[in-house]
Amino acid sequence: MALGVTAAYVIALLAAILAFVYAVYLAVWVKQQKNENKTIERIAGLIREGANTFMRKEYTVLAGFAGIAAALIFLFLPKPVWQGGVDRNLTMALSYIAGTIFSAIAGKIGIMVASLANARCAEAATKGIRPAFLIGFRGGAVMGLMVVGSCLLGVLGVLLLTGDSTMLLGFSFGASSLALFAKAGGGIFTKTADVSADLAGKVELGIPEDDPRNPAVIADNVGDNVGDVAGMGADLFDSNIASMSAALVMASALDGGRLGNASLMVILYSALGLISSIIGIFTARINEHGSPTKALNNSTYVTTGVFLALTALATLLFKGFAWRVWGASTVGLFVGVIIGLATNYFTDDSRPIVKKVAHASKSGPAFTILSGVSYGLISVMPAMVGIALSAMVAYKLCEPMGPGYAMYGIAMAAVGMLSIVGMIISNDAYGPIVDNARGLAEMGGLGEDTIRVADELDSAGNTVKAVTKGFAIGAAGLTVIALLGAFMSEVNAVLVELGRAAERLVGFDLTNPTVFFGTLVGAAVPAVFSAMLILGVDKNAQRMIAEIRRQFKEIPGLAEGRPGAEPEYNKCIDIATTGALKELIPAGMFAIVITILVGFIGGVNAIGGFLLGNIVSGLLLALFMSNAGGLWDNGKKYVEAGHEGGKGSEAHKAAVIGDTVGDPFKDTAGPSINTQITVVSLVASLLAGVFVNLHIF
Amino acid sequence: MALGVTAAYVIALLAAILAFVYAVYLAVWVKQQKNENKTIERIAGLIREGANTFMRKEYTVLAGFAGIAAALIFLFLPKPVWQGGVDRNLTMALSYIAGTIFSAIAGKIGIMVASLANARCAEAATKGIRPAFLIGFRGGAVMGLMVVGSCLLGVLGVLLLTGDSTMLLGFSFGASSLALFAKAGGGIFTKTADVSADLAGKVELGIPEDDPRNPAVIADNVGDNVGDVAGMGADLFDSNIASMSAALVMASALDGGRLGNASLMVILYSALGLISSIIGIFTARINEHGSPTKALNNSTYVTTGVFLALTALATLLFKGFAWRVWGASTVGLFVGVIIGLATNYFTDDSRPIVKKVAHASKSGPAFTILSGVSYGLISVMPAMVGIALSAMVAYKLCEPMGPGYAMYGIAMAAVGMLSIVGMIISNDAYGPIVDNARGLAEMGGLGEDTIRVADELDSAGNTVKAVTKGFAIGAAGLTVIALLGAFMSEVNAVLVELGRAAERLVGFDLTNPTVFFGTLVGAAVPAVFSAMLILGVDKNAQRMIAEIRRQFKEIPGLAEGRPGAEPEYNKCIDIATTGALKELIPAGMFAIVITILVGFIGGVNAIGGFLLGNIVSGLLLALFMSNAGGLWDNGKKYVEAGHEGGKGSEAHKAAVIGDTVGDPFKDTAGPSINTQITVVSLVASLLAGVFVNLHIF
Repeated sequence: MALGVTAAYVIALLAAILAFVYAVYLAVWVKQQKNENKTIERIAGLIREGANTFMRKEYTVLAGFAGIAAALIFLFLPKPVWQGGVDRNLTMALSYIAGTIFSAIAGKIGIMVASLANARCAEAATKGIRPAFLIGFRGGAVMGLMVVGSCLLGVLGVLLLTGDSTMLLGFSFGASSLALFAKAGGGIFTKTADVSADLAGKVELGIPEDDPRNPAVIADNVGDNVGDVAGMGADLFDSNIASMSAALVMASALDGGRLGNASLMVILYSALGLISSIIGIFTARINEHGSPTKALNNSTYVTTGVFLALTALATLLFKGFAWRVWGASTVGLFVGVIIGLATNYFTDDSRPIVKKVAHASKSGPAFTILSGVSYGLISVMPAMVGIALSAMVAYKLCEPMGPGYAMYGIAMAAVGMLSIVGMIISNDAYGPIVDNARGLAEMGGLGEDTIRVADELDSAGNTVKAVTKGFAIGAAGLTVIALLGAFMSEVNAVLVELGRAAERLVGFDLTNPTVFFGTLVGAAVPAVFSAMLILGVDKNAQRMIAEIRRQFKEIPGLAEGRPGAEPEYNKCIDIATTGALKELIPAGMFAIVITILVGFIGGVNAIGGFLLGNIVSGLLLALFMSNAGGLWDNGKKYVEAGHEGGKGSEAHKAAVIGDTVGDPFKDTAGPSINTQITVVSLVASLLAGVFVNLHIF
Repeated sequence: MALGVTAAYVIALLAAILAFVYAVYLAVWVKQQKNENKTIERIAGLIREGANTFMRKEYTVLAGFAGIAAALIFLFLPKPVWQGGVDRNLTMALSYIAGTIFSAIAGKIGIMVASLANARCAEAATKGIRPAFLIGFRGGAVMGLMVVGSCLLGVLGVLLLTGDSTMLLGFSFGASSLALFAKAGGGIFTKTADVSADLAGKVELGIPEDDPRNPAVIADNVGDNVGDVAGMGADLFDSNIASMSAALVMASALDGGRLGNASLMVILYSALGLISSIIGIFTARINEHGSPTKALNNSTYVTTGVFLALTALATLLFKGFAWRVWGASTVGLFVGVIIGLATNYFTDDSRPIVKKVAHASKSGPAFTILSGVSYGLISVMPAMVGIALSAMVAYKLCEPMGPGYAMYGIAMAAVGMLSIVGMIISNDAYGPIVDNARGLAEMGGLGEDTIRVADELDSAGNTVKAVTKGFAIGAAGLTVIALLGAFMSEVNAVLVELGRAAERLVGFDLTNPTVFFGTLVGAAVPAVFSAMLILGVDKNAQRMIAEIRRQFKEIPGLAEGRPGAEPEYNKCIDIATTGALKELIPAGMFAIVITILVGFIGGVNAIGGFLLGNIVSGLLLALFMSNAGGLWDNGKKYVEAGHEGGKGSEAHKAAVIGDTVGDPFKDTAGPSINTQITVVSLVASLLAGVFVNLHIF
């Protein structure tokens, strides 16, 4: 190869450092923006404090969980510590801890900057859309850059320090553990606050959205940050690490255990993806009368184009079949874009589907629900066919490269799809920042014009958010297929080590009843997992609603808005925080325990089926829930914009019910399923050695 | 073997004849019951007429569809007619037609008797629960006996006349085609009428349920008959034939192409199941103060017990491993009962789940929906684990019998689960008869006491219906796994014939990207199919609501109930009928066309994955929709019984919205997915030979 190991590492390290430097620059830039409105700053301070409270508690609980997990990893993985190999077990445990810490730091910094950006964005909105957009976008970009920079740095660090790609699974599992807490916990938090604020405030008491009298209003804004900024960041951190790890585990097998071309391409492609995202972020701008949606989309197109060009150039440096790998990566990226567009078709209110659901609302809420469920179900088709086709094409493209390269091709498709993840996260984190800014503009009394600007920024955030969510789910799908390959690699490595090379897995036969058993059980898991999260939101919201009612009853002058009558915002934040962590743990444990059970019952064959069933039903439910939720949300907004009777009409009431149902679908359960799939796949891969030896059937 | 071919045939034929004789006896008995109330008889006459109108139209459209399908079968199946074998193609086409006709006749007679029984049941209810129960149950039993008798007779006929088990797939596909029309078409019909009658009548105009002024009221009652009696009958006819066919196709391969022990056991077990059902039906009785639910359950237990005893005795007649087959069949039956009990847990209003959903309704309709969706999702777990375990156990039990016996074991588990189908259909058809009787009692002014008796009968119908629905879905799941085996047998037979025995399939590897591609696409199909049906109900209901409003506006005196002011019931029946057929065809064509497309794209491997994905997501969605629907229905009834605020409260309004959402879930989409899965599996098996030769990847 023309490109040496060192050169690839240096490029990747430079890219990571560049990302951090640029992130610091943007963070400083955001901090320097004007921030003079006292009311806004006070409220923004409350939001910041609330987010910190949640993250502190979350990280404390997580530390306990991670401590136990690390101890178990040390005892059992990659093989029981009493069978020798203490060093390797210790390394694995440390890699796991590193995974949680890297993700936690990236999340913490991202959310810090996001919660600085919201107030400044609100204030800038008084001067027009151009400065406000830049603050919102750059605040989000800090999260994007931090996440992808940490990913790359972490993976390189583990590889360089341990020289053992299996350790990446530990690192990846650490990131997944954090993502489970951040995404599912944050998702329960944000929807608890949102639903309670709406029901107890808007519906029962008739006070407007974002009214400072509402005790849940700060929790609601905190939720945007912890659920959408930190949660989505951790989710994509997780997917990105998982796709790189899966690719590198397979690459290591292909390269004969050392760093060869297969591994280098993974690292190089990820590094080039990060560089492309930096360029894309750099180009994001908007005119005084421009559309923020267009601006966001344009920088995504720039990123995509630069990535394709850079990787094509890099491919020239490799001899032989490297263009096949390029093809696989390109197919992945292309399908990601297709999924994004399909999501947009089903959830954007300028397209027919949202209009149909809004129209159905005229016949009552049952029809809002029925039509939303129906179109949500139909919307899974393009994404699933896209993922299926891209996996098939990537596989067939790379198959001629030699045995084992086919599954590697699928992993590279996932790497390709996730290559622009820096840009995706930036776009996504933009959403909650401008959403918060809108709330602050309202609470700070910045006037109608400013709120209108903030509304326009917010609407772009919603559109882009739906697209990135589809993208995240697609990426998780491909990643987990790649993890299925990684699982096989792990099992075979164990078998070879045990001198049972003859039993090497060549695949999973679905007419094998053990595989089939695993498939059906695996398919049921995302259903139960997502249901537990939704019920968690439900339970938690009941508690918060009771608290809101109590405050309105017991705090004198609060309902009338007497000056000095302040609600106890912290109580609501406490309820959301404690409840979120309490409700998420059983769901997470359920998924992990059942994976281990299936492994002990049916061994590696059952796990193969289990992972497949889990992917299939996980994709189906995640796409359905995210899209139906987005559809209802925008359906409500469409009615509020004056269609089908407008605000206050029967159609509006029905659309609000649809939106309330959709909230935990799209912001709690749907996107958490991604994480659940990844967690389960990593648990399976990590325990591969144990399942080979211990199982009933 | 101790039991000769002739003896087994004779037993099976005698069982079928016995079923017909007993059905005729029961039909005559029902007809002889008192039927003197003129008002009731007039309305019952309208219902009967409406049902006939629907079935006439349905059968006309079906005849066209079947004609085209038969022509295509003649041209292409089992292999293109120009490659020789005209006789076989003609036999296949005729078998197909026979399948549609057998199912149609059974459905026609069943519904005829059911629509005689409803008026008589209403009148008997004036004298107490004992005589009314017997009429309701025996009216339903005619359907159960006709269906199972025709199944057995049809399968025996095809086998005896053609001596070729592959022809059974044609026969089975005929039954499936009819089931698709009956179940999906009937499902759209019944929910169109139900939803429209409720929305336009109860909600808009404030007239009570079953009020004769409502132009949709007759269509609503017709819907109970065509959707629930004829539809569910056709569905279980289809599952029963499919399970027998799958078992016999595999048995034929095991027996070396002639009728050996493996085939005999299938026929014998089915015959003994029918005999057990006859005995169970015979024992159904109730005391004056007894519980109809208990009476229905008891006869199911009798049937199950008798079946187990008879098959154990029969097993003694076979040498060797026959007890393994008995074990497989018993496991299937056992799991069917478990699924039924689990369904009951999630949908019965004496259990905690229904109460929780009713309680959630106090916070508004969004919570009714969210909690119902959540528990519906959780409810899939026991059934899916049960099916997975039973398939694994049946496989492992029969594996030692020799190569190929393992999949045969799964087919026998399906046969075992469906053995008591005669009893299941009887119980199920009882529901709509007593539901109709309740409506007739109300419309005929039979007084509060009679309505109370009818209510009690109706409530038992609802409970049992949920159980049988779970049972039907479980049976379809196992059957389709067996059909996967049949598909492999067919493919291998074609390959051997082509001299390509080396390519024989030994399984489907899910890490093969073609298989994986098929899996993801297959998983998306039930989602889209069910969504199309729900949207169909929605569209059709809009048309009917417009018609109801028109009648109330244009027919003088109708709204006030002036004597002589009659609504035009037939217009509503016409709308429901035409719309149902119009909406179902695209959904059915979508499922069939996509199966063929996947086969042409990825060949038999893609189809293997496609069938698996289809089963997995089909089971998930069917169980979810049926159980969530049942849960909402009973949640509403629980509130109406005076809990959580009772009738007219906010909780009641929310529960009604849940019920309206649940209606097309549980009576249109959920149970139609069964049929969709079977249709797709049969299309795949029939086209096996074509896909072997023609595919892109």
